[in-house]
Amino acid sequence: MYDIPTQPYEMTAAEAAALIADRKLAVSELTASCLERIAHRDTVVKAWIFVDPDMAMRKARELDKALIHEGSRGPLHGLPFGVKDMIDTADMPTTNNSPIYDGFQPGQNAKIVRNIIGTGGFVLGKTDTVEFAAGGRKALTRHPMDSSRTPGGSSSGSGAAVGDMQVPLAIGTQTGGSHIRPASFNGIYAIKPTHNSVSWSGSRHYSPTLDTLGWYGRSPDDLVLVARAFRMWNMENLPTIKIKDLKIGIARTANWDKCAPETVAAIERAATLLADQGVTIFDLDMPEGCEHMCDAQKTIAAAEGIAQFLPEYLEHYHLLHPQFRERVENSNNVTPESYLEAVNLAALCRMRFDALFGTELDAVLTPSSLGEAPQKPDSTTGDAIMNSMWTLLQVPCINIPGAKGPNDLPVGVTLAGPRLGDARLLAISKAVAPVLDPGLRVGG
Amino acid sequence: MYDIPTQPYEMTAAEAAALIADRKLAVSELTASCLERIAHRDTVVKAWIFVDPDMAMRKARELDKALIHEGSRGPLHGLPFGVKDMIDTADMPTTNNSPIYDGFQPGQNAKIVRNIIGTGGFVLGKTDTVEFAAGGRKALTRHPMDSSRTPGGSSSGSGAAVGDMQVPLAIGTQTGGSHIRPASFNGIYAIKPTHNSVSWSGSRHYSPTLDTLGWYGRSPDDLVLVARAFRMWNMENLPTIKIKDLKIGIARTANWDKCAPETVAAIERAATLLADQGVTIFDLDMPEGCEHMCDAQKTIAAAEGIAQFLPEYLEHYHLLHPQFRERVENSNNVTPESYLEAVNLAALCRMRFDALFGTELDAVLTPSSLGEAPQKPDSTTGDAIMNSMWTLLQVPCINIPGAKGPNDLPVGVTLAGPRLGDARLLAISKAVAPVLDPGLRVGG
Repeated sequence: MYDIPTQPYEMTAAEAAALIADRKLAVSELTASCLERIAHRDTVVKAWIFVDPDMAMRKARELDKALIHEGSRGPLHGLPFGVKDMIDTADMPTTNNSPIYDGFQPGQNAKIVRNIIGTGGFVLGKTDTVEFAAGGRKALTRHPMDSSRTPGGSSSGSGAAVGDMQVPLAIGTQTGGSHIRPASFNGIYAIKPTHNSVSWSGSRHYSPTLDTLGWYGRSPDDLVLVARAFRMWNMENLPTIKIKDLKIGIARTANWDKCAPETVAAIERAATLLADQGVTIFDLDMPEGCEHMCDAQKTIAAAEGIAQFLPEYLEHYHLLHPQFRERVENSNNVTPESYLEAVNLAALCRMRFDALFGTELDAVLTPSSLGEAPQKPDSTTGDAIMNSMWTLLQVPCINIPGAKGPNDLPVGVTLAGPRLGDARLLAISKAVAPVLDPGLRVGG
Repeated sequence: MYDIPTQPYEMTAAEAAALIADRKLAVSELTASCLERIAHRDTVVKAWIFVDPDMAMRKARELDKALIHEGSRGPLHGLPFGVKDMIDTADMPTTNNSPIYDGFQPGQNAKIVRNIIGTGGFVLGKTDTVEFAAGGRKALTRHPMDSSRTPGGSSSGSGAAVGDMQVPLAIGTQTGGSHIRPASFNGIYAIKPTHNSVSWSGSRHYSPTLDTLGWYGRSPDDLVLVARAFRMWNMENLPTIKIKDLKIGIARTANWDKCAPETVAAIERAATLLADQGVTIFDLDMPEGCEHMCDAQKTIAAAEGIAQFLPEYLEHYHLLHPQFRERVENSNNVTPESYLEAVNLAALCRMRFDALFGTELDAVLTPSSLGEAPQKPDSTTGDAIMNSMWTLLQVPCINIPGAKGPNDLPVGVTLAGPRLGDARLLAISKAVAPVLDPGLRVGG
């Protein structure tokens, strides 16, 4: 049924899960293969801040035994995850890439980690992140295809680890563009689901209105698998999508003129390929107010960051990166009035955006990044301006790879849907991905 | 300056803080006095699930030494707190009143605990709570003035401990009416600040849209002290309030007809006493849509609870109280559509409510509870319907004691303000409390 690759590490999560369930692949085989890949690649890519091969193999063997003696623990049985290092793990450090948390090991797993373990998955290791997923220190991670470039951020290690086939699945987070942008740069699939679809507890907060957990995989089915394990709305039976009936609107958004040619080309390519399949493609006018969402996102992050970084400011002033001290001291001069104006406008834009969907619109097509992954010296981890509006709208976004830039590096496109329309958007992505992504594995 | 009580445990937090700063009261004296009071009362009231007197005295002596050798650590220097037992503490258990967490001790402090410690305060012990502050098992706590009655919930232990003068300050939380209602029943001051004013991280989530941390004290100055330590907006200089210039609107709300006579009387009493001082009192028409906020609050809690309780459902199904299993299984039959309808209406009502304030309205006067604390066998912990609208509106609410019911038990009233108007609402409460509360200590 599947076009099985030579090495287990090359499998998509969906392929591996099916083979494990059929007892055709041992969890320990998959894990050993990932660990080998990591050992081979980590000195260059530096995606991980912690992997203990012995611990990983113990977990893998335990899951192999459990499958025989107790049966499957759930849809993620045997699947290893990379977990961004600002998400608490009880048996591994959680450093937030901050000296305050150097070597710190929390006493409990974050809720999302418990969802993974509770449905049969396990944490292979922790992936490097921008400090507090917010600013300050950058991850050491390099782009897997060109080590002079950034893999994006702040979910740098998670994006690179999945892109480099070191692990089939990884967890990232997004407050601005931290989850979708690395997916674009690394040529992988990602979903930033509707805000609050997964419990944030135990993950490091920056802005509760914006902070959203998401996951990376190498196929749309990988994203579906995790969404189903996490029991997101309407995941039991995905709707059947006829590609020729789809109506997709292109949202060029207020920052379109900042896009590099390869991003413009990626959108045009997607539009052409989909139109060839009978999809109705049209230019979407975003609702009134959306042109201010990028600024509103910055105001909200600045205002909400004050309370989130206050404890470190009080307890560890000198170890806290100056960028975060400035946030607590409100160097952005946000006011209660400007914050509430942003919050209120965002609420209205969410309603207006959701209302676009129905018989006239199934999904929005929009850039995932300004362009290819930039050179590291010229940039930090890339720009969030093509993503931050969608984060503030709290709507599901899925990155679909397939296009390439002038340096033969990936450039993704985003499909967005209305709030809580994640299941339908995943179904649409499954229909659309084979058209857009020549690298999508058969059956994957 | 202050009318100093015989026993330190009787002091308000503001009194104690001033005396500690002036080196007229040792932290260890205050702590020993609270511990004595607890020892004397705990068998009846059962407010605490954990107090270690040796640990408390060690902390107190350390703070006494620090004051001499390093100076004050902040505005809360030396003040002991009760902390609701669904808020993580690194050196004490955090059980959530759930058998899943029996004896569990998290490896780190919740952010609000770190704010307390970072500004000189300390945790005296953990206070009993309704299971996960949400349902299931009730706290063992009894009303300090009548042990046949409930102290309210879910912040049962925090409310009772402050009401019974076992500790000057305590932290509670509110998702429906869990913070303000116990304040009403126990005759104490409480603020439920604007949503997200304090980082929720490390506190047990039930519904991120609703969950709000608050604190209890025995004077408006106690509430101010903590708000200032937590650096809430505009707390540096509270506005000067002339009581005769105030305009206060009475919001009887959709559930007014369910109020017991003592609650109706408490509102009328407050209106009369304030009018006697020159306050303009009028009946406020709440904005369109607010009549649905009580139902919307239930829908949102039900929908968001699914993701929050999923990890326990997956990992500890048999130890999870059936009420929470039902939540995860969506026994309330919430749909994405009904959830979003509630979320959208709430967003509109927030804007409409905030817009009422200005030259025509300074604060809203509304019930804090349906009546006095009910008998334990007849009820659980009381009803949240007079509070849940305000929680969903995410606006600051302050409970002011002073009225009594037919059993001579306290009945509080709530002052509410617009979002982020906490500083002004606290200033108004300071002006209004001496008029309404004959028990308010001079200088307290």
